[in-house]
Amino acid sequence: MAMTRAARTRVGSPTPKADAASVIASLEPGAVVIADRRVLGLHPPLAKALRARADIVVHAVTAGERLKSLSGLAQLAKATLPLRRHGLLCAIGGGTVGDLATVGAHLIKRGVRLWHVPSTLLAAVDSSIGGKGALNVGAVKNALGVFHEPERTFVLPELFTTLTPTQRREGRVEAWKMALTLDALTYRRWCAAAPDDEPLVVHARALKTAICRADPLESKGLRVVLNFGHTFGHVFEALSGFRVRHGDAVGLGMLCALDVGVALGVTPAQVRDAVTPTLPLGAAPRVRLSRLLSRATDVHVAALLSADKKADAAGLRMVLLERPGRWRAVPVAEAVWRACARRWRRGEAP
Amino acid sequence: MAMTRAARTRVGSPTPKADAASVIASLEPGAVVIADRRVLGLHPPLAKALRARADIVVHAVTAGERLKSLSGLAQLAKATLPLRRHGLLCAIGGGTVGDLATVGAHLIKRGVRLWHVPSTLLAAVDSSIGGKGALNVGAVKNALGVFHEPERTFVLPELFTTLTPTQRREGRVEAWKMALTLDALTYRRWCAAAPDDEPLVVHARALKTAICRADPLESKGLRVVLNFGHTFGHVFEALSGFRVRHGDAVGLGMLCALDVGVALGVTPAQVRDAVTPTLPLGAAPRVRLSRLLSRATDVHVAALLSADKKADAAGLRMVLLERPGRWRAVPVAEAVWRACARRWRRGEAP
Repeated sequence: MAMTRAARTRVGSPTPKADAASVIASLEPGAVVIADRRVLGLHPPLAKALRARADIVVHAVTAGERLKSLSGLAQLAKATLPLRRHGLLCAIGGGTVGDLATVGAHLIKRGVRLWHVPSTLLAAVDSSIGGKGALNVGAVKNALGVFHEPERTFVLPELFTTLTPTQRREGRVEAWKMALTLDALTYRRWCAAAPDDEPLVVHARALKTAICRADPLESKGLRVVLNFGHTFGHVFEALSGFRVRHGDAVGLGMLCALDVGVALGVTPAQVRDAVTPTLPLGAAPRVRLSRLLSRATDVHVAALLSADKKADAAGLRMVLLERPGRWRAVPVAEAVWRACARRWRRGEAP
Repeated sequence: MAMTRAARTRVGSPTPKADAASVIASLEPGAVVIADRRVLGLHPPLAKALRARADIVVHAVTAGERLKSLSGLAQLAKATLPLRRHGLLCAIGGGTVGDLATVGAHLIKRGVRLWHVPSTLLAAVDSSIGGKGALNVGAVKNALGVFHEPERTFVLPELFTTLTPTQRREGRVEAWKMALTLDALTYRRWCAAAPDDEPLVVHARALKTAICRADPLESKGLRVVLNFGHTFGHVFEALSGFRVRHGDAVGLGMLCALDVGVALGVTPAQVRDAVTPTLPLGAAPRVRLSRLLSRATDVHVAALLSADKKADAAGLRMVLLERPGRWRAVPVAEAVWRACARRWRRGEAP
């Protein structure tokens, strides 16, 4: 598939920009802010602006997968008791804070308004767009989830100044994924000159926004493109016990998707070979992939693939690339990915 | 307000009827059933039909307010792990089972299909219609909630054969509330000859369904009519530490709403006096009301009223009756209800 013209016209539309102090000042009285306490510690102007607002409630949390739980939700529900009907919940943090806030905003008083202030590049280009939020239940990741669109999202470049190189790469991988699958022009421009964070965020947000608007409830088969690289990405996260970060796992997963695409005749080999070195993957991806796979048998990998939401009764489907800007969701037989995985395990590909 | 003609045309439309065995037989393979284990014990044909279905999962629960909790949700999430995307969750039980199932169906895999098999008259005429479901968080009732419409609802008269007189009265109170506020013709017919359970359920379901269809997200000010009797009803539940059952509390609350209506000139005194003896309230309502109020000061009552969702920044609003079939939501000043409550406490009214 390629993007429709209607979707394309929205691409490149500006993302709201502001500074922390003005965003906090613009919160309505009685609003509740859920904020990553680490972000508050790293950004004194933000913390100061919050302290100056005696008329709002600040619920400081420790970010991470543990926050995305029903006990995290219970604590948020208690913190938001003073919120009026249709009141405002504002999330300041990365993906896990945004996920909990999205589920909370959907359920509290049967739905309150939601603002996102993503504190990571990854949250800015990905999780703060499209309205999806989910919680883990025990060991089951994202067992419960909602669609709840934010009313506004503020991208504050000042928050990105304290990100680690790994955190930056995480955001970049998802941004490149969107350009590669959805917008050949932007992808080629980025290949010619690697973009700064700001234009990268603007373009990636516009691309994801357009896809999500075209398929808001993930019912039309369009939004599935966002899973490019995620099928094997999720396997690698699980195999590493979640020590490999999401962005790095998805980067490796994109290489795998390109290789499976070649095996199925969907991706021309020259496209795979041209694309592979352009992606922001960090050092020695082939070696890391080989090491990850050496920990698991194909049976183990198959179990992880079938546990993933992308698999259904009809078997595994993967988003594969025809060429930059053009993709297809394709059934992948077990024999096909097993043959690929043998080579990946030996470090011969992708 | 009175019902529109469009809403009226749906009134009296038949409710799906069936028997337990055929409903269970019609569940798709892989469905999950959440069922009140007390209901299973009381109805061997139902339990037998479920045992005969090796291809579905039965999650038996203990009904009650404690079930409507995040831990109840976590257990349901675990029980529904095998459910496919857009799979089927079927709730067999009263209001608390239906509430948990509604929230669960909304969140599991970002929304699965929901069938209701209400086991009480109250659930049949009220909570199984309109898509609302909520969970308690700690002491906060219904702190988290959703709208999630059931795909189907099956009213099985065989399940009502084991209800206690109190349970029957609970359902009848809500049914009479709907006829009184929404449908003068049905109300007058019921006054002339008290209806059997079956026509009562059919009419009340049709009335509630019509109102909920006209205002699915409670955004148009129509659905508020369903709160008739609930403003003070919730106060009485709280004052009794929830020992007074919901239906009985709402019955008393309806008397209060009629009396406040007279005080504000909305309800003619002769309407209040004509309606009061027609309602299925149980013995000595005035005495019970006086006893309940003697436990609390007006300050305590005011706090409970303002904690209720019906109060907002603009103060208390109540649904009041102009005449059978015609209602209005009206702001009620504290002085007005305090003057009424003084008389209620002394047993002089309503």
